[in-house]
Amino acid sequence: MVMKKFINDPDNITTELLEGFALAYPKQVKLSGDKIVVRATPKAKDKVAIVTLGGSGHEPALSGYVGEGMLDASVVGDVFAAPGGPKVLEALRMFKDHPGILLVVLNHAGDVMNANIAYEKAIKEGINVEKILTAEDIAPGVDAPLEDRRGLGGCIPLIKVAGAAAEAGKSLDEILEVAGRFNKTMVTLAVTMKTATHPQSGQYISELADDEMEIGMGQHGEGGGTGPQKIANADETAEVMVKKLIAAAGATHGDTVTLIVNGSGATTLMEMFIIFRKAWQVLNEQGISVVGGRCEEILTVQEAAGFQMFLAKFDAETQKFYEAPSTAPYWVTR
Amino acid sequence: MVMKKFINDPDNITTELLEGFALAYPKQVKLSGDKIVVRATPKAKDKVAIVTLGGSGHEPALSGYVGEGMLDASVVGDVFAAPGGPKVLEALRMFKDHPGILLVVLNHAGDVMNANIAYEKAIKEGINVEKILTAEDIAPGVDAPLEDRRGLGGCIPLIKVAGAAAEAGKSLDEILEVAGRFNKTMVTLAVTMKTATHPQSGQYISELADDEMEIGMGQHGEGGGTGPQKIANADETAEVMVKKLIAAAGATHGDTVTLIVNGSGATTLMEMFIIFRKAWQVLNEQGISVVGGRCEEILTVQEAAGFQMFLAKFDAETQKFYEAPSTAPYWVTR
Repeated sequence: MVMKKFINDPDNITTELLEGFALAYPKQVKLSGDKIVVRATPKAKDKVAIVTLGGSGHEPALSGYVGEGMLDASVVGDVFAAPGGPKVLEALRMFKDHPGILLVVLNHAGDVMNANIAYEKAIKEGINVEKILTAEDIAPGVDAPLEDRRGLGGCIPLIKVAGAAAEAGKSLDEILEVAGRFNKTMVTLAVTMKTATHPQSGQYISELADDEMEIGMGQHGEGGGTGPQKIANADETAEVMVKKLIAAAGATHGDTVTLIVNGSGATTLMEMFIIFRKAWQVLNEQGISVVGGRCEEILTVQEAAGFQMFLAKFDAETQKFYEAPSTAPYWVTR
Repeated sequence: MVMKKFINDPDNITTELLEGFALAYPKQVKLSGDKIVVRATPKAKDKVAIVTLGGSGHEPALSGYVGEGMLDASVVGDVFAAPGGPKVLEALRMFKDHPGILLVVLNHAGDVMNANIAYEKAIKEGINVEKILTAEDIAPGVDAPLEDRRGLGGCIPLIKVAGAAAEAGKSLDEILEVAGRFNKTMVTLAVTMKTATHPQSGQYISELADDEMEIGMGQHGEGGGTGPQKIANADETAEVMVKKLIAAAGATHGDTVTLIVNGSGATTLMEMFIIFRKAWQVLNEQGISVVGGRCEEILTVQEAAGFQMFLAKFDAETQKFYEAPSTAPYWVTR
């Protein structure tokens, strides 16, 4: 069966998509060598650099967030695959004369391994780099061991906070502190209703029956905590998910949070608004204020139907950095 | 079979999605009565108002473009259905004390009919309103009668140009002139690979075999010019489409154009970048410069796989207005 995707040779997907991305936004980004995306006009060396790594196939994540106020560089792997350690090291070396580098790593085995390889070599070379690991998936339970908690779309708001702190001239230690504080309050829960096709193998990445959905599924089709269930309506789904997130984040009356409904690919903005509405109502009933809410596709899973619901508690400083301007092609400054 | 969408009662879709939209972006937009979206902080009465109308189900279009520099109001119909004339008139009356109103109408029978009803009544009431009709679909051929040329996603860049002109203090006549000039250079061609489900009826809106796609299909599943064909790869598809658009727009060596790849719903940004890359290359080979390019979902067709490719020639003034800032929730200022 022919894959219903607009691609050419499956082996060239990542190279071609990055070329197209750079051609679409030449004022914002450019390619630096093979599969490293940097700002079109790199910032002077007097600021801490923010760098991340991750597989392609999740667009606009992660390279769509290269720009002033967010990332200095994104190191791109093949579809759903981490880039190699040497490639990550190449990116870190670009910023060796900066006052420091924060490497944002999503908690997936390949990303962690290759980030560690690059990190250790960079340290030996005298490069001032620190890592921050995002692992905000609450599907396995908030007390689950770290290796079971995946890094989902929460890396993007974290990059926003860290990037704005870097742009404001904060030191690496100060950025680690504020981003670390935000990281601890981040929680995400995903739901999938229809699977996606891996654009290189042509295979479905998971299986769901015509009347099923699954809460807690990961962004590569990895199993969730609770297994498939019968499809629930929007309000029921939103209520179950937001209540789990509120509990996991420890959000209570008087808190200010941000709420992001991040579409996986085929779920419409129409549906995301309906979900957001119910989640907002539940938060409101509990006396929790929402600021900086968003409904959009920030980290996708090909044409999967579903979404990730993200919640994080703000303090005055993290809110300020979250709301600061950015020129990244896929961050809408609202 | 259960529909794989996150909705509640299908009859409440439009109301609930608009509520969610307004809750997500309270600094930018609010609801004015039933199904009229206006700016959260309406502009003083000294500028021309830009108003549009259209069915829901195409989010973020059209209400996602309410904001400074773009729309003053969006009048929303039910899914894929135009709002009624009295509702459109209600929106026009809101701006009767402004120096004028430009009503942007997409060329679909229901939109045109209801816009005309409201327009005629408003004129009788002494309201200074003018209409502009977008009908940039080239699928039926550039010489096709107006009734066959649909208004596709080109309404959004047109609203951007007209909205910035209004914000700059231009008169209604001046806005009509510059928006009209841009309108004449706009061309769009759509391609569909997988159909979508109407979220109220649960029915597919078109039929395509597993190995077929169709160039020229409209945004409600209406037939295209050439009928279904075997799936072509990304480069072949992009080349065929951009060459038709270049010819229809009369773009030649030395011209500056904008190029938008507007995803229909389930087509990934990954694919849109690959398509953009090839279209850019064809334009570049012909000596045509691309500025202000975009790959994103600006006007969708539920979870259809496919995209609309949009091209328009810029002059210095239309480019300036296109690139001017906007606070609309779904226009990324790049």
